[in-house]
Amino acid sequence: MMAGDLAQRIRDRQPGRALAREFYTDPFIFQRDMQDMLLRHWFCAGHASSIPNAGDYWLVDLGAESVIIVRTQSGEVRALLNVCRHRGSRICSGRSGKVQSGRLTCPYHAWSYDLDGRLMVARQMPDSFQRAEFTLKSLPVRIMEGLVFITFAEEPLELAGAADALARSAGVHGWASAKVAHREMYSIKANWKLAVENYMECYHCTPAHPEFAKRHVYARPAQHNQELELAGRSRAAALGIVVPDIDHYGCAAGAGRESVAVMRSALHDGMVSATDDGRSVSRLMGSFSASDGNSTYFDIGPISDFLAYPDHGVIYRFIPRTVDHTEMEVMWLVHQDAVEGVDYDVGRLTWLWRTTSAEDKKIVEMNQAGVNSRFYCPGPYSLQETYAGRFVDWYLQELSRGAEGRAAGDWAS
Amino acid sequence: MMAGDLAQRIRDRQPGRALAREFYTDPFIFQRDMQDMLLRHWFCAGHASSIPNAGDYWLVDLGAESVIIVRTQSGEVRALLNVCRHRGSRICSGRSGKVQSGRLTCPYHAWSYDLDGRLMVARQMPDSFQRAEFTLKSLPVRIMEGLVFITFAEEPLELAGAADALARSAGVHGWASAKVAHREMYSIKANWKLAVENYMECYHCTPAHPEFAKRHVYARPAQHNQELELAGRSRAAALGIVVPDIDHYGCAAGAGRESVAVMRSALHDGMVSATDDGRSVSRLMGSFSASDGNSTYFDIGPISDFLAYPDHGVIYRFIPRTVDHTEMEVMWLVHQDAVEGVDYDVGRLTWLWRTTSAEDKKIVEMNQAGVNSRFYCPGPYSLQETYAGRFVDWYLQELSRGAEGRAAGDWAS
Amino acid sequence: MMAGDLAQRIRDRQPGRALAREFYTDPFIFQRDMQDMLLRHWFCAGHASSIPNAGDYWLVDLGAESVIIVRTQSGEVRALLNVCRHRGSRICSGRSGKVQSGRLTCPYHAWSYDLDGRLMVARQMPDSFQRAEFTLKSLPVRIMEGLVFITFAEEPLELAGAADALARSAGVHGWASAKVAHREMYSIKANWKLAVENYMECYHCTPAHPEFAKRHVYARPAQHNQELELAGRSRAAALGIVVPDIDHYGCAAGAGRESVAVMRSALHDGMVSATDDGRSVSRLMGSFSASDGNSTYFDIGPISDFLAYPDHGVIYRFIPRTVDHTEMEVMWLVHQDAVEGVDYDVGRLTWLWRTTSAEDKKIVEMNQAGVNSRFYCPGPYSLQETYAGRFVDWYLQELSRGAEGRAAGDWAS
Repeated sequence: MMAGDLAQRIRDRQPGRALAREFYTDPFIFQRDMQDMLLRHWFCAGHASSIPNAGDYWLVDLGAESVIIVRTQSGEVRALLNVCRHRGSRICSGRSGKVQSGRLTCPYHAWSYDLDGRLMVARQMPDSFQRAEFTLKSLPVRIMEGLVFITFAEEPLELAGAADALARSAGVHGWASAKVAHREMYSIKANWKLAVENYMECYHCTPAHPEFAKRHVYARPAQHNQELELAGRSRAAALGIVVPDIDHYGCAAGAGRESVAVMRSALHDGMVSATDDGRSVSRLMGSFSASDGNSTYFDIGPISDFLAYPDHGVIYRFIPRTVDHTEMEVMWLVHQDAVEGVDYDVGRLTWLWRTTSAEDKKIVEMNQAGVNSRFYCPGPYSLQETYAGRFVDWYLQELSRGAEGRAAGDWAS
Repeated sequence: MMAGDLAQRIRDRQPGRALAREFYTDPFIFQRDMQDMLLRHWFCAGHASSIPNAGDYWLVDLGAESVIIVRTQSGEVRALLNVCRHRGSRICSGRSGKVQSGRLTCPYHAWSYDLDGRLMVARQMPDSFQRAEFTLKSLPVRIMEGLVFITFAEEPLELAGAADALARSAGVHGWASAKVAHREMYSIKANWKLAVENYMECYHCTPAHPEFAKRHVYARPAQHNQELELAGRSRAAALGIVVPDIDHYGCAAGAGRESVAVMRSALHDGMVSATDDGRSVSRLMGSFSASDGNSTYFDIGPISDFLAYPDHGVIYRFIPRTVDHTEMEVMWLVHQDAVEGVDYDVGRLTWLWRTTSAEDKKIVEMNQAGVNSRFYCPGPYSLQETYAGRFVDWYLQELSRGAEGRAAGDWAS
Repeated sequence: MMAGDLAQRIRDRQPGRALAREFYTDPFIFQRDMQDMLLRHWFCAGHASSIPNAGDYWLVDLGAESVIIVRTQSGEVRALLNVCRHRGSRICSGRSGKVQSGRLTCPYHAWSYDLDGRLMVARQMPDSFQRAEFTLKSLPVRIMEGLVFITFAEEPLELAGAADALARSAGVHGWASAKVAHREMYSIKANWKLAVENYMECYHCTPAHPEFAKRHVYARPAQHNQELELAGRSRAAALGIVVPDIDHYGCAAGAGRESVAVMRSALHDGMVSATDDGRSVSRLMGSFSASDGNSTYFDIGPISDFLAYPDHGVIYRFIPRTVDHTEMEVMWLVHQDAVEGVDYDVGRLTWLWRTTSAEDKKIVEMNQAGVNSRFYCPGPYSLQETYAGRFVDWYLQELSRGAEGRAAGDWAS
């Protein structure tokens, strides 16, 4: 597909409807997705508690990119491209680890970098060689409430609003003092936008997620929940918990600012956490002296979503890989002092979102299979799919202005 | 490859020879195959006896398309696109099943359709929403002698000649009163045209199918079989069996009419069915009071082929999926009242065509491997490959006029 | 990518640096690689001792091509395209075998060729059919010191210099009287040029190949080895072994001539062969009356590399398949009269290069993973990567003049 065709297709979209087939299937459009949206925005790489000591690292992927998230000697967190400046080899492999001897050493020719990415050793180079020119490329990093955010953008979007929103959501939930208790990776044979649209709406929750729907009132239309939501707000107020609803999502973020949204919603009556039996699953976090029976949804940028309960949290990371392959990483957070087997049981902690994620993988893949049809025709969003529709509006806006402000890197081919 | 290049390549073909490499390897040409030939013609989806009751369904694929073949409340058979009108999800999964509560309910957001495809339930839609505009797309269906035919064409090809031919072949064999005793799917790593060319000629039968060649005289050149074929015709006449040879195959079908051909051929002397021992394998079907020791070949359109014996039948369905992947479904038919273990044994029933199909998969894949070579150069068809050559002539004719009369759907990209 | 873009990219390359990303990832450039370089050059297909008798054959692949290397009735070695002249089927399958009844018979329709590729039997062809027009296509074959070389070029490159160089290297090592003791195939998920660059430099040997580096002094920079190399030359001279260094590699081959290079290098002190314990692993070969503790590296064309020790040898064949998939075949040679279990043990014989090849597969795949990044930027070659740099210079020269002199076959795609 040519760029001109794409502009026409963007104009052709009917407001209030899902995208046409090509947006979910065309490799050229996926390239545009990467350039015009995914590489422009901040995304969550994980939680800083995963790398407590200098030299600890983990790897984060996006498309064909691999980034090393590493704790430096001075205690900072750096994001270094996992691409040796010599002949381009990956430097680290595996998912996480500990750098030996404080040096990131490429296994191919042993070019060796310090934890800030400075090239320290390169044997047998010509006299003209200037080590200082071969520092590992690095990405902007921002840690907010313990969450590590990075971006590939050369001119990163403004994060002030996002930081404030996180302080008033993740901050209240004590995420800066959390740790990762468990993680799962889901490989989804579908375009990333179908996975994100799925996450952004709860119209499907009642038919597709019976376990979720029994715990979160959000599965029902808003007008059915007014009483329960009001009761939830009263419980929060009684405990002094203040988490405002914030909506700077997508196009509402404003030019040059990162998208952020925060929203609270009640659990069904009598439930203190989103568990099998509705009872607590770990020790209380942050400002919570007791559970208020609510959940806090928030997200930053297009592919990083979060869900906080009084006693645990969930990070959702969508990782677009190719036009028809997306990975979804789910991480469960608990209080940093919680002890496995004493304060929490991993099986109970993860049950609801393991179950829900497995269901999501299946329905998103069936969605992709149907969208591949020549006879697929985008239908209208329901009243319960407002955010999916807003996501699509935002996505198309990003693609439209792609031609103007490019993200970093070499976009040729 | 551009459309102009394709026109030139069609003109470049040497008559009497197989196709050039690109026709078997180029994804662009495969798209043209879908549009200009496969989606224009009728093809057999299976046998109506597979869905005796209202709500029974099975799924049929072609390329990226999935179709629900379902028995409605009024007893009709409908072919509904397996693509929800909301956000495009597949509605049914699995190969076959029974619709719950008489409703096709999408597992994603629970849009619910009756068995005629009318949208009955869609929760939480805006006031402007008109349910009647969101009926499942459906395809024309025609049941002939128990066989279910469907087509993606907006203006379907005329079937009168095909119906007549089927009445005089499948009809004589009693296929309207048959049932499916067994099915097998073969996944072939090759372009669909190589699979069809292979089916359309028996030049390869002697070297590649020794089991077939010992049972069907058709494996030998026609001039060697005159005596045996005449004897076969006498046996048929003695039993009052009249099945005419009909040749409206391919280009001979005439404009706007579906291709159909019927041909009889004898089994080797003394054999009453195409079985391991040449003996009967199930109860007699249709007009047969005894076996006449002949077989009846017939086909409708380019990818649906049939073979009838006095006591059983075989349906061959070719299912093009991508440029280098074809599925082949084989179904074995017996009399609807035949009882497994009493009247027939599945192992004996299916032996010859399981053996032959496994051989075909292998030789067609070796053909594709060779055709992929830059040094492949199409050679001349033998006298025993007339129908393969006619298939290719027909295929090129279809591609040539593709630009004029398009089939249904959105052909962009 | 268009041809004009490619020319610009070739001009854009910074001398002394690896190639830009597209050269390792773009399917269009891979097609050019095939046409402009791989199909123009000679490459080693294996060792003639593998087919001692008439009708013995083995199959050789390159890209999508398959070639039958067969011993004819007259004792010659022929290279026949494994593509039937009828409908293009592969004729032989499997890796090697013995032709039945002296005829290459296609398993599809039984067209049958003699061992020179002449069509002998084709049933049921029209009267106008001329068998003589349907001889199997064949490639030029040249056997030098027992090694079988073939080329797809219509006007093959001159081999006189290569033959002379082989006589003075493989010849001294007695390879004409060798046999293949073992072979291994490695499937590498990487572009072929990364695999060849890896082979052409030993900068990576110290970090990535500790086993090799303990045996071959070549793993170290040349200036560290002067004493050891001089001692090695003295040992050779004392035994009357003369193997000259020859450098007609790549661009230095001269127009119309095949690339060839020969180089000797010492083993570490006290080692007589490149084995686990440094001791001999089989009987001495060629002109060696004792081991001189040296190794002889030589190569012909871009993808055929060889390594000779006094008591065994190694053939390295790189087999580009697709833009991101390369096979690497390694064959171990011993004296033709050596007896397994008596003169040599396969485990000891193959240990070093099995170990080293497994390491190479891993590092080359990590190289590809990093090169796929948008942020990959080709760095400068070290002083120990001269040959990798020369390989890349040569490769770009070949691509540049591709437009002028094409290799054989149908290059249209």
